[in-house]
Amino acid sequence: MADDQRKTKKTVTIYGQQYKVVGDESEEHVEEVARLVDEKMNELHKLNPYMDTTKLAVLTAVNMGHEYVSLKNLSYEQKEEEE
Amino acid sequence: MADDQRKTKKTVTIYGQQYKVVGDESEEHVEEVARLVDEKMNELHKLNPYMDTTKLAVLTAVNMGHEYVSLKNLSYEQKEEEE
Repeated sequence: MADDQRKTKKTVTIYGQQYKVVGDESEEHVEEVARLVDEKMNELHKLNPYMDTTKLAVLTAVNMGHEYVSLKNLSYEQKEEEE
Repeated sequence: MADDQRKTKKTVTIYGQQYKVVGDESEEHVEEVARLVDEKMNELHKLNPYMDTTKLAVLTAVNMGHEYVSLKNLSYEQKEEEE
C-alpha cells in the first residue's frame, strides 16, 4: 500500500533489546524517543539494581507519562493566561 | 524529615501490579499518569495478546515518550512563531 510505504520503519535498541517501531513520525523523532526511554531505564536500573526489567519498564513509562502530563498541564495553564 | 513529609506517597495499580509512587506532584497528577500508563498497556495487550509484559511496558514507555516529545516540539514551534 502506498500509505504504508510512507511510514517510518526503524529498529531501535532499548535496554539491550531491539524493537521495530512503525509510525508516521520522522526517524529523528523515533530515535529521540527511543534514546529517552533507554536512558531513563538505565538510570532507574542504577538506582534500583535489583529491580526486574518489567518493573523498570513500567516505572519508565510512568516517568515518561509524568513528563507528558506536566507539559500538557503547563501548556494548558499558559493558554488560559493568554486568553 | 520535614521535606520528606510533604512528598506525595501513593500506591497505584498498573496492569494488575501495585507500585508505590513518591513525588512532589499532587495525588491527582500521580493518578492521572498511572491511569494513562495502565490504559496504554491494556490497549497494547489487546493488540498484541502474545507479547510479554516487559515488551508491553517498554512499548508503553515509548508511546508516552512519543506523546511527550511531540508536545515538547509543538510547544517549541509555537514559541518560535510568537517571537
